[in-house]
Amino acid sequence: MNKPAILHLSESFMAYALSLDELNIRLRSDKKDKLDVSLIYTYKCDYSHVWKETKMEKNFEDGYFSYYEINLKLADKRLAYVFKIEDGSEAYYLSENGLEEAYDFENFYFTSFHMPYIHEADLFEPVEWMKDAVFYQIFPERFRRGDFSKDDSYINQAWEDLPSPKSFAGGDIKGIIEKLDHIKDLGVTCLYLTPIFISPTNHKYDTIDYFEIDPQFGDKNDFKKLVEKAHSLGIRIVLDAVFNHMCHENPVFKDVREKGKESIYYDWFYIDGDKADIEKINYETFAHVYNMPKLKTSNKEVQDYLIKIGKYWIEEFDVDGWRLDVSDEVSHDFWKRFRKAIKSVKADAVIIGENWHNAEAFLRGDEFDSIMNYAFTKACLDYFKGKISAKEASDKLNMILMRNRDQANRMMLNFLDTHDTPRFITEIGGSREKLLAALALSVVYMGANSLYYGTEVGLEGKGDPDCRRTFPWDKLGEEQDFLEKTKEILAIKKHQTIKNGNIRISSEEDLLLVERFTKEKTLGLTINLGEERDFKLGEKEILVAGNYKDRKLGKNSYLIWEK
Amino acid sequence: MNKPAILHLSESFMAYALSLDELNIRLRSDKKDKLDVSLIYTYKCDYSHVWKETKMEKNFEDGYFSYYEINLKLADKRLAYVFKIEDGSEAYYLSENGLEEAYDFENFYFTSFHMPYIHEADLFEPVEWMKDAVFYQIFPERFRRGDFSKDDSYINQAWEDLPSPKSFAGGDIKGIIEKLDHIKDLGVTCLYLTPIFISPTNHKYDTIDYFEIDPQFGDKNDFKKLVEKAHSLGIRIVLDAVFNHMCHENPVFKDVREKGKESIYYDWFYIDGDKADIEKINYETFAHVYNMPKLKTSNKEVQDYLIKIGKYWIEEFDVDGWRLDVSDEVSHDFWKRFRKAIKSVKADAVIIGENWHNAEAFLRGDEFDSIMNYAFTKACLDYFKGKISAKEASDKLNMILMRNRDQANRMMLNFLDTHDTPRFITEIGGSREKLLAALALSVVYMGANSLYYGTEVGLEGKGDPDCRRTFPWDKLGEEQDFLEKTKEILAIKKHQTIKNGNIRISSEEDLLLVERFTKEKTLGLTINLGEERDFKLGEKEILVAGNYKDRKLGKNSYLIWEK
Repeated sequence: MNKPAILHLSESFMAYALSLDELNIRLRSDKKDKLDVSLIYTYKCDYSHVWKETKMEKNFEDGYFSYYEINLKLADKRLAYVFKIEDGSEAYYLSENGLEEAYDFENFYFTSFHMPYIHEADLFEPVEWMKDAVFYQIFPERFRRGDFSKDDSYINQAWEDLPSPKSFAGGDIKGIIEKLDHIKDLGVTCLYLTPIFISPTNHKYDTIDYFEIDPQFGDKNDFKKLVEKAHSLGIRIVLDAVFNHMCHENPVFKDVREKGKESIYYDWFYIDGDKADIEKINYETFAHVYNMPKLKTSNKEVQDYLIKIGKYWIEEFDVDGWRLDVSDEVSHDFWKRFRKAIKSVKADAVIIGENWHNAEAFLRGDEFDSIMNYAFTKACLDYFKGKISAKEASDKLNMILMRNRDQANRMMLNFLDTHDTPRFITEIGGSREKLLAALALSVVYMGANSLYYGTEVGLEGKGDPDCRRTFPWDKLGEEQDFLEKTKEILAIKKHQTIKNGNIRISSEEDLLLVERFTKEKTLGLTINLGEERDFKLGEKEILVAGNYKDRKLGKNSYLIWEK
Repeated sequence: MNKPAILHLSESFMAYALSLDELNIRLRSDKKDKLDVSLIYTYKCDYSHVWKETKMEKNFEDGYFSYYEINLKLADKRLAYVFKIEDGSEAYYLSENGLEEAYDFENFYFTSFHMPYIHEADLFEPVEWMKDAVFYQIFPERFRRGDFSKDDSYINQAWEDLPSPKSFAGGDIKGIIEKLDHIKDLGVTCLYLTPIFISPTNHKYDTIDYFEIDPQFGDKNDFKKLVEKAHSLGIRIVLDAVFNHMCHENPVFKDVREKGKESIYYDWFYIDGDKADIEKINYETFAHVYNMPKLKTSNKEVQDYLIKIGKYWIEEFDVDGWRLDVSDEVSHDFWKRFRKAIKSVKADAVIIGENWHNAEAFLRGDEFDSIMNYAFTKACLDYFKGKISAKEASDKLNMILMRNRDQANRMMLNFLDTHDTPRFITEIGGSREKLLAALALSVVYMGANSLYYGTEVGLEGKGDPDCRRTFPWDKLGEEQDFLEKTKEILAIKKHQTIKNGNIRISSEEDLLLVERFTKEKTLGLTINLGEERDFKLGEKEILVAGNYKDRKLGKNSYLIWEK
């Protein structure tokens, strides 16, 4: 047995509450070891020293590790536990002492692992609608122009032109409203709009006024109509909050540029010197850009201001949550307050961080519900670009799930591309077959999924600004077949196994297999990036979707079945 | 290389801020592997892709693992990093991808580890005075009676009798004041009093009124005098807060017993039924005792009430912190609010949890500063009882330090015994030599240390109630030699290496070695539980204390040296 490979962390993502009377407990080991792992437990205040023993299941496996799990229903919330780990020839006990050949059960109150109590206030409550949500990400400047009466002197590119970093094509809220039926028809359940507040840029990630819609996009009336119509179609709306920084032209920062230390906002930023100076850039910024001065989110006044924004658009316009830009660089202290404030005005509003990395520290149930799952994106890029095998893809997809609590996994926003990355189809060399297979993966994998506008017609694009092309509405007609395939895939998100079913990911030669299952039903996705091969279904297995032909699974194809 | 044994967790106790511009980063590996571990890092927004490389040090080792560390000063707060791990024949990179033979530095923004930013509001600020504090724990009922004018009809045991579970001997605050000079003389810098608020029991862990001193102990005037005199002697005072539960006779709970669901306090508890019924015990309690109904610390009203208590005794009486009873069973949500409230009224008030187990989830800088370090106690018990060797003791003492952030380690309350355990001297068979050696260990180990009243005269006692004997003041005279040895050991806590020095723990045959060191100075503690042996000092090493004789280190003895 590879003893130093065995890992458990109490009160962490490896031992946490699923509900007021259920825990998930995990243990990691070297995958080379074939182990029997049991949880031996008692209740902390049960002085009768009666211990129960129950077997744990190996649910996940990646390149190095096996992951054993148990969901344990509790009769008492004060759990004490140790693990028994056997490999046929050896048996060890794992406790806070580490791994030992024998465990001193008499003195368990010193050395067992503990889950001392489950409190309502500490529970990670999932946003139920996220678990099977289909997001549609819109970059409003490029999606659709609906208002032809607005002052359009800012527009400097024709709709059909390719964008440049500073081009404006004229997309707006009225355009989105106009296309809600198209969006609804796709099977979308939630819109995610990149920023819509007043800002000088086309991306609007540098806000001048967080309480006003940019006139290029419309006004509050338009936005109210958008929310109302979307809601009437069963589509929620998530907005983009840029709280790490603001625009250098924001009146708050301008006050500091003008008054320096005399400004009441001086301590809202990180300024080295008396006055903020955009020539010298003597202040902290997003990346190294002068036009995005960084906000000091440790400052309670800044926190109050940002919380007011967060609540305002929910209370006044009934939006359904926030996507938080550069959220990893904003203080945990702020996000804890932000969560409480947001959930107090709308309990099922979703909070999604833009964290490109392992965000376990933000996903403990007291900050975000979800993040933009770039780790999933990267695994898809590597797999569909042929950099990694089906086996390695399976390993990665398993590994990512073992970073976080189950609640977070079920709300992760899984996507193939965004306004910040090249279009997936372009990255994989234009293969629509592969794109569909990847979309299917994003739908069947655990969490919500998000479709970047235009994907449904195979819109191409390299990195920014090319990934922000205008939607080619005139091509919609000729893309009906692809569109239908996209819809067929997105519809899978409604399958009864998705919302609360478990997941199993594996590989078999060139095939990647993802299964979602409940006690009653199993849904399977098979992806083949290898050569064409026959496939045969098991007993009771019924084909649901896919681009198979007859009984052949072609190169770069997928099929979805259920039983 | 044992690859599955390699562990790093980003944004955790293995990667965290020490200050606004310094991080501690740790990596764990199989101790059998002799590795070179380097941190390779860049700044997240440094698109020049210039990577720096710096070697990590192996600072700790336990039964299975080596722990590599680096304290990294940052030029930019947005760090991206990976590890290079070499063992002579092989080299691997560790990133969020796991361990790989090559790392794709081009795509680091997807897969490197990140420490995205260090915020003031998220920083774990140490309470400076804790780092070299000598606590003295008093169980007031048994320490000293000073008031002979009080109504003493409750006293039912003579001072010299052994206690029973329900006996009262008459100790009080005036008695403590009387003995402050004794306490000061020991070298104590902080008193920790078990509960002093109104309660029917001798231990007073079941509070009836959190805003009043129990008349058995005195009144607020007495307490004010105690704090003033202690402070004038440079001694701080920490009180014991019992927030997990209260007394069944507390008016709040009585209201629920009487009015049931009509009581405004009904939702302050966990009651199964209309009325709380002390016969049926139809409510949650501490352990299973009817007289300690559990408070619902998820309830904001309960939180507000307990916070008011926490602030009151600081604002009105200038106490210096709280020891929190059964703190592991109280909600994290509450402790986060509690910390902010307490620090807002006294920034250097200390918050010490009674968590017997790994409390990393409480010690991230936003709940407690410290816990009662029962893991240290258990290691001492095992070692001084001869259950484990010097090597195993070294392993345990190293392991415990690698559970938590450095800030928490430097504030841990290390002790040999409390009112909840048998007296250490009794556990180890009465050996005063060993007791002194153990005391020395508790002083030299990282953190604060706490002496349980009476230890300085070798007071014995089995488990509760025997560990709560009255202080044998009449024996003080005959215990002068032992008392002097105790003082000599406690004085070591003032050594210049203790407060901010590092620690190194190792063993050599039967010797346990603990060193504290700064760049300028090293302090060493050697404990010998084996047979008598010669010792010789190294160059420049000077003896500071110990019970060595000539150049012999006897069985169960210790020596302290510096260089």
